[in-house]
Amino acid sequence: MSGLPIYRTPIAQEWIDYNGHVRDAYYGLIASYAVDSLMDRIGIDAPYREQSGCTLYTVEMHIHYLREIGADDTVEVRVRILGADQKRIHAALELVRDGSEETSATCEVMLLHICQTPIARTAPFPEPIAAAIAELRHATAALPASGPSSRRMELVSR
Amino acid sequence: MSGLPIYRTPIAQEWIDYNGHVRDAYYGLIASYAVDSLMDRIGIDAPYREQSGCTLYTVEMHIHYLREIGADDTVEVRVRILGADQKRIHAALELVRDGSEETSATCEVMLLHICQTPIARTAPFPEPIAAAIAELRHATAALPASGPSSRRMELVSR
Repeated sequence: MSGLPIYRTPIAQEWIDYNGHVRDAYYGLIASYAVDSLMDRIGIDAPYREQSGCTLYTVEMHIHYLREIGADDTVEVRVRILGADQKRIHAALELVRDGSEETSATCEVMLLHICQTPIARTAPFPEPIAAAIAELRHATAALPASGPSSRRMELVSR
Repeated sequence: MSGLPIYRTPIAQEWIDYNGHVRDAYYGLIASYAVDSLMDRIGIDAPYREQSGCTLYTVEMHIHYLREIGADDTVEVRVRILGADQKRIHAALELVRDGSEETSATCEVMLLHICQTPIARTAPFPEPIAAAIAELRHATAALPASGPSSRRMELVSR
Protein backbone atom coordinates (compact mmCIF):
# COMPACT_ATOMS: atom_id res chain seq x y z
CA MET A 1 0.00 0.00 0.00
CA SER A 2 1.43 3.33 -1.06
CA GLY A 3 -0.84 5.63 0.92
CA LEU A 4 -3.88 5.65 3.18
CA PRO A 5 -7.12 4.83 1.30
CA ILE A 6 -9.29 7.92 1.76
CA TYR A 7 -11.89 7.93 -1.02
CA ARG A 8 -13.56 5.67 -3.59
CA THR A 9 -15.82 6.46 -6.52
CA PRO A 10 -17.30 4.76 -9.56
CA ILE A 11 -16.84 6.67 -12.82
CA ALA A 12 -19.74 8.92 -13.85
CA GLN A 13 -20.74 8.68 -17.50
CA GLU A 14 -20.39 12.47 -17.99
CA TRP A 15 -16.69 12.18 -17.12
CA ILE A 16 -16.00 10.24 -20.37
CA ASP A 17 -14.76 12.38 -23.28
CA TYR A 18 -14.49 11.96 -27.06
CA ASN A 19 -11.38 9.82 -26.54
CA GLY A 20 -13.48 7.16 -24.81
CA HIS A 21 -11.91 7.53 -21.37
CA VAL A 22 -12.12 9.83 -18.34
CA ARG A 23 -11.36 13.45 -19.36
CA ASP A 24 -8.18 14.83 -17.79
CA ALA A 25 -10.01 17.37 -15.61
CA TYR A 26 -12.14 14.68 -13.96
CA TYR A 27 -9.04 12.99 -12.58
CA GLY A 28 -8.69 16.33 -10.80
CA LEU A 29 -12.30 16.19 -9.63
CA ILE A 30 -11.72 12.74 -8.13
CA ALA A 31 -8.63 14.15 -6.39
CA SER A 32 -10.69 17.14 -5.20
CA TYR A 33 -13.35 14.86 -3.67
CA ALA A 34 -10.55 12.89 -2.01
CA VAL A 35 -9.30 16.14 -0.45
CA ASP A 36 -12.84 16.68 0.91
CA SER A 37 -12.52 13.27 2.60
CA LEU A 38 -9.10 14.25 3.91
CA MET A 39 -10.61 17.45 5.34
CA ASP A 40 -13.30 15.42 7.12
CA ARG A 41 -10.63 13.15 8.56
CA ILE A 42 -8.50 15.94 10.04
CA GLY A 43 -11.45 17.90 11.39
CA ILE A 44 -11.91 20.55 8.70
CA ASP A 45 -15.38 19.15 8.16
CA ALA A 46 -18.68 20.93 7.47
CA PRO A 47 -19.45 21.71 11.16
CA TYR A 48 -15.93 23.15 11.66
CA ARG A 49 -16.22 25.20 8.47
CA GLU A 50 -19.62 26.54 9.51
CA GLN A 51 -18.63 27.36 13.09
CA SER A 52 -15.22 28.85 12.33
CA GLY A 53 -15.71 30.34 8.87
CA CYS A 54 -12.41 28.65 8.00
CA THR A 55 -11.62 26.12 5.26
CA LEU A 56 -8.88 24.94 2.91
CA TYR A 57 -8.08 26.59 -0.43
CA THR A 58 -6.05 24.70 -3.04
CA VAL A 59 -3.17 26.87 -4.16
CA GLU A 60 -1.44 24.38 -6.46
CA MET A 61 -2.28 21.02 -8.11
CA HIS A 62 -0.02 18.88 -10.27
CA ILE A 63 -1.30 15.72 -11.94
CA HIS A 64 0.65 13.04 -13.81
CA TYR A 65 -1.59 10.95 -16.08
CA LEU A 66 -0.18 7.44 -16.22
CA ARG A 67 -2.99 5.17 -17.43
CA GLU A 68 -6.46 5.54 -18.89
CA ILE A 69 -9.54 5.18 -16.67
CA GLY A 70 -12.71 3.86 -18.33
CA ALA A 71 -16.45 4.13 -17.87
CA ASP A 72 -16.75 0.85 -15.96
CA ASP A 73 -13.95 1.51 -13.52
CA THR A 74 -14.07 2.28 -9.82
CA VAL A 75 -11.18 4.34 -8.49
CA GLU A 76 -9.60 4.35 -5.05
CA VAL A 77 -7.58 7.34 -3.89
CA ARG A 78 -4.72 6.95 -1.42
CA VAL A 79 -3.11 9.84 0.41
CA ARG A 80 0.26 10.64 1.91
CA ILE A 81 0.96 13.86 3.83
CA LEU A 82 4.36 14.94 2.54
CA GLY A 83 4.64 18.08 4.62
CA ALA A 84 2.77 20.59 6.73
CA ASP A 85 3.35 23.84 8.55
CA GLN A 86 1.12 26.12 10.65
CA LYS A 87 -1.16 26.93 7.71
CA ARG A 88 -0.36 24.56 4.86
CA ILE A 89 -0.59 20.89 3.92
CA HIS A 90 1.36 19.31 1.07
CA ALA A 91 -0.40 16.06 0.14
CA ALA A 92 0.26 13.37 -2.46
CA LEU A 93 -2.68 11.43 -3.90
CA GLU A 94 -2.67 8.29 -6.01
CA LEU A 95 -5.60 7.13 -8.13
CA VAL A 96 -5.78 3.34 -8.52
CA ARG A 97 -8.42 1.42 -10.46
CA ASP A 98 -10.10 -1.51 -8.70
CA GLY A 99 -8.55 -4.73 -9.91
CA SER A 100 -5.34 -3.02 -11.02
CA GLU A 101 -1.98 -3.08 -9.30
CA GLU A 102 -0.86 -0.05 -11.31
CA THR A 103 -1.42 3.59 -10.42
CA SER A 104 -3.54 5.47 -12.98
CA ALA A 105 -2.46 8.93 -11.87
CA THR A 106 -0.47 10.73 -9.22
CA CYS A 107 -1.53 14.14 -7.94
CA GLU A 108 0.08 16.55 -5.53
CA VAL A 109 -1.78 19.42 -3.92
CA MET A 110 -0.78 22.36 -1.73
CA LEU A 111 -3.62 23.33 0.60
CA LEU A 112 -3.84 26.57 2.58
CA HIS A 113 -5.97 27.23 5.68
CA ILE A 114 -8.12 30.31 5.06
CA CYS A 115 -10.67 32.05 7.27
CA GLN A 116 -13.15 33.62 4.89
CA THR A 117 -14.85 36.22 7.09
CA PRO A 118 -14.86 39.17 7.26
CA ILE A 119 -12.33 38.94 4.41
CA ALA A 120 -10.39 35.87 3.27
CA ARG A 121 -7.05 35.62 5.08
CA THR A 122 -4.65 32.84 6.01
CA ALA A 123 -4.81 31.49 9.56
CA PRO A 124 -2.96 28.87 11.62
CA PHE A 125 -4.63 25.48 12.14
CA PRO A 126 -6.32 25.12 15.55
CA GLU A 127 -4.47 22.68 17.81
CA PRO A 128 -6.73 19.61 17.39
CA ILE A 129 -6.49 19.92 13.61
CA ALA A 130 -2.73 20.46 13.69
CA ALA A 131 -2.43 17.32 15.83
CA ALA A 132 -4.55 15.28 13.39
CA ILE A 133 -2.42 16.48 10.47
CA ALA A 134 0.78 15.60 12.35
CA GLU A 135 -0.54 12.14 13.16
CA LEU A 136 -1.51 11.44 9.54
CA ARG A 137 1.80 12.81 8.33
CA HIS A 138 3.67 10.54 10.73
CA ALA A 139 1.70 7.54 9.47
CA THR A 140 2.09 8.21 5.74
CA ALA A 141 5.01 10.51 4.87
CA ALA A 142 7.52 7.66 4.59
CA LEU A 143 5.33 5.38 2.46
CA PRO A 144 6.77 4.83 -1.03
CA ALA A 145 5.47 6.77 -4.02
CA SER A 146 4.00 4.66 -6.83
CA GLY A 147 4.56 7.23 -9.59
CA PRO A 148 6.17 10.54 -10.45
CA SER A 149 6.28 13.47 -8.04
CA SER A 150 5.68 17.10 -8.87
CA ARG A 151 8.45 18.62 -10.95
CA ARG A 152 9.03 21.48 -13.33
CA MET A 153 7.23 20.59 -16.57
CA GLU A 154 9.46 20.74 -19.59
CA LEU A 155 9.82 19.16 -22.97
CA VAL A 156 13.01 17.11 -22.94
CA SER A 157 13.97 15.25 -26.09
CA ARG A 158 13.77 11.49 -25.79
CA MET B 1 -2.04 40.39 -23.70
CA SER B 2 -0.14 37.46 -22.32
CA GLY B 3 -1.34 34.78 -24.70
CA LEU B 4 -3.71 34.11 -27.58
CA PRO B 5 -7.38 34.11 -26.48
CA ILE B 6 -8.63 30.61 -27.33
CA TYR B 7 -11.72 29.93 -25.20
CA ARG B 8 -14.38 31.69 -23.13
CA THR B 9 -16.99 30.32 -20.76
CA PRO B 10 -19.47 31.56 -18.16
CA ILE B 11 -19.32 29.71 -14.84
CA ALA B 12 -21.77 26.82 -14.43
CA GLN B 13 -23.59 26.73 -11.09
CA GLU B 14 -22.50 23.13 -10.44
CA TRP B 15 -18.87 24.28 -10.46
CA ILE B 16 -19.37 26.23 -7.19
CA ASP B 17 -18.36 24.39 -4.02
CA TYR B 18 -19.05 24.75 -0.29
CA ASN B 19 -16.47 27.56 -0.17
CA GLY B 20 -18.70 29.69 -2.40
CA HIS B 21 -16.34 29.80 -5.38
CA VAL B 22 -15.35 27.58 -8.31
CA ARG B 23 -14.03 24.21 -7.07
CA ASP B 24 -10.34 23.64 -7.86
CA ALA B 25 -11.01 20.80 -10.32
CA TYR B 26 -13.28 22.98 -12.47
CA TYR B 27 -10.43 25.37 -13.18
CA GLY B 28 -8.91 22.24 -14.74
CA LEU B 29 -12.13 21.58 -16.68
CA ILE B 30 -12.04 25.10 -18.12
CA ALA B 31 -8.40 24.49 -19.09
CA SER B 32 -9.40 21.15 -20.63
CA TYR B 33 -12.10 22.79 -22.77
CA ALA B 34 -9.54 25.40 -23.82
CA VAL B 35 -7.27 22.56 -24.98
CA ASP B 36 -10.19 21.27 -27.07
CA SER B 37 -10.29 24.70 -28.75
CA LEU B 38 -6.52 24.56 -29.24
CA MET B 39 -6.92 21.13 -30.88
CA ASP B 40 -9.55 22.54 -33.26
CA ARG B 41 -7.22 25.39 -34.13
CA ILE B 42 -4.22 23.21 -35.02
CA GLY B 43 -6.27 20.65 -36.95
CA ILE B 44 -6.70 17.90 -34.35
CA ASP B 45 -10.43 18.46 -34.64
CA ALA B 46 -13.30 15.95 -34.64
CA PRO B 47 -13.03 15.11 -38.39
CA TYR B 48 -9.27 14.52 -38.06
CA ARG B 49 -9.76 12.39 -34.96
CA GLU B 50 -12.45 10.32 -36.69
CA GLN B 51 -10.55 9.83 -39.94
CA SER B 52 -7.12 9.16 -38.41
CA GLY B 53 -8.00 7.49 -35.11
CA CYS B 54 -5.46 9.89 -33.56
CA THR B 55 -5.90 12.46 -30.80
CA LEU B 56 -4.10 14.17 -27.93
CA TYR B 57 -3.70 12.68 -24.46
CA THR B 58 -2.79 14.90 -21.52
CA VAL B 59 0.20 13.43 -19.71
CA GLU B 60 0.75 16.18 -17.16
CA MET B 61 -1.19 19.21 -15.83
CA HIS B 62 -0.01 21.77 -13.28
CA ILE B 63 -2.32 24.51 -12.00
CA HIS B 64 -1.49 27.51 -9.83
CA TYR B 65 -4.61 28.97 -8.17
CA LEU B 66 -4.10 32.71 -7.80
CA ARG B 67 -7.55 34.22 -7.31
CA GLU B 68 -11.09 33.05 -6.63
CA ILE B 69 -13.59 32.75 -9.48
CA GLY B 70 -17.26 33.25 -8.61
CA ALA B 71 -20.65 32.15 -9.88
CA ASP B 72 -21.27 35.32 -11.88
CA ASP B 73 -17.91 35.37 -13.65
CA THR B 74 -17.02 34.70 -17.27
CA VAL B 75 -13.52 33.39 -17.85
CA GLU B 76 -11.26 33.84 -20.86
CA VAL B 77 -8.39 31.42 -21.47
CA ARG B 78 -5.22 32.52 -23.25
CA VAL B 79 -2.64 30.11 -24.59
CA ARG B 80 1.08 30.15 -25.29
CA ILE B 81 2.90 27.24 -26.92
CA LEU B 82 6.08 26.93 -24.88
CA GLY B 83 7.54 23.99 -26.79
CA ALA B 84 6.78 21.19 -29.19
CA ASP B 85 8.49 18.20 -30.76
CA GLN B 86 7.36 15.52 -33.21
CA LYS B 87 4.74 14.11 -30.85
CA ARG B 88 4.32 16.54 -27.97
CA ILE B 89 3.04 20.04 -27.18
CA HIS B 90 3.90 21.96 -24.01
CA ALA B 91 1.29 24.69 -23.58
CA ALA B 92 0.73 27.39 -20.96
CA LEU B 93 -2.82 28.57 -20.26
CA GLU B 94 -4.00 31.56 -18.27
CA LEU B 95 -7.51 31.97 -16.89
CA VAL B 96 -8.64 35.60 -16.65
CA ARG B 97 -12.02 36.82 -15.40
CA ASP B 98 -13.89 39.32 -17.56
CA GLY B 99 -13.43 42.78 -16.12
CA SER B 100 -10.24 41.83 -14.29
CA GLU B 101 -6.68 42.68 -15.22
CA GLU B 102 -5.35 39.96 -12.95
CA THR B 103 -4.86 36.31 -13.83
CA SER B 104 -7.01 33.94 -11.77
CA ALA B 105 -4.95 30.83 -12.52
CA THR B 106 -2.06 29.62 -14.61
CA CYS B 107 -2.01 26.09 -16.00
CA GLU B 108 0.61 24.17 -17.94
CA VAL B 109 -0.15 20.98 -19.85
CA MET B 110 1.95 18.43 -21.68
CA LEU B 111 0.01 16.89 -24.56
CA LEU B 112 0.98 13.73 -26.46
CA HIS B 113 -0.21 12.69 -29.93
CA ILE B 114 -1.68 9.18 -29.72
CA CYS B 115 -3.20 6.96 -32.40
CA GLN B 116 -5.74 4.81 -30.58
CA THR B 117 -6.26 1.95 -33.04
CA PRO B 118 -5.55 -0.90 -33.12
CA ILE B 119 -3.84 -0.19 -29.79
CA ALA B 120 -2.96 3.20 -28.35
CA ARG B 121 0.55 4.25 -29.37
CA THR B 122 2.40 7.53 -29.81
CA ALA B 123 2.73 8.90 -33.35
CA PRO B 124 4.35 11.94 -35.02
CA PHE B 125 2.09 14.86 -35.97
CA PRO B 126 1.17 14.91 -39.68
CA GLU B 127 2.87 17.76 -41.53
CA PRO B 128 -0.07 20.22 -41.69
CA ILE B 129 -0.62 19.89 -37.95
CA ALA B 130 3.10 20.22 -37.19
CA ALA B 131 3.13 23.41 -39.29
CA ALA B 132 0.12 24.83 -37.44
CA ILE B 133 1.76 24.09 -34.09
CA ALA B 134 5.01 25.73 -35.23
CA GLU B 135 3.14 28.82 -36.40
CA LEU B 136 1.26 29.17 -33.11
CA ARG B 137 4.45 28.57 -31.15
CA HIS B 138 6.24 31.26 -33.14
CA ALA B 139 3.40 33.70 -32.42
CA THR B 140 3.08 33.04 -28.68
CA ALA B 141 6.20 31.46 -27.13
CA ALA B 142 7.86 34.78 -26.37
CA LEU B 143 4.79 36.46 -24.84
CA PRO B 144 5.27 37.22 -21.14
CA ALA B 145 3.82 34.96 -18.45
CA SER B 146 1.31 36.58 -16.10
CA GLY B 147 1.80 34.16 -13.22
CA PRO B 148 3.91 31.29 -11.93
CA SER B 149 5.23 28.53 -14.18
CA SER B 150 5.30 24.84 -13.43
CA ARG B 151 7.80 23.95 -10.74
CA ARG B 152 8.48 21.23 -8.23
CA MET B 153 5.86 21.59 -5.49
CA GLU B 154 7.34 21.87 -2.04
CA LEU B 155 6.58 23.40 1.30
CA VAL B 156 9.15 26.11 1.94
CA SER B 157 8.92 28.05 5.19
CA ARG B 158 7.92 31.66 4.76
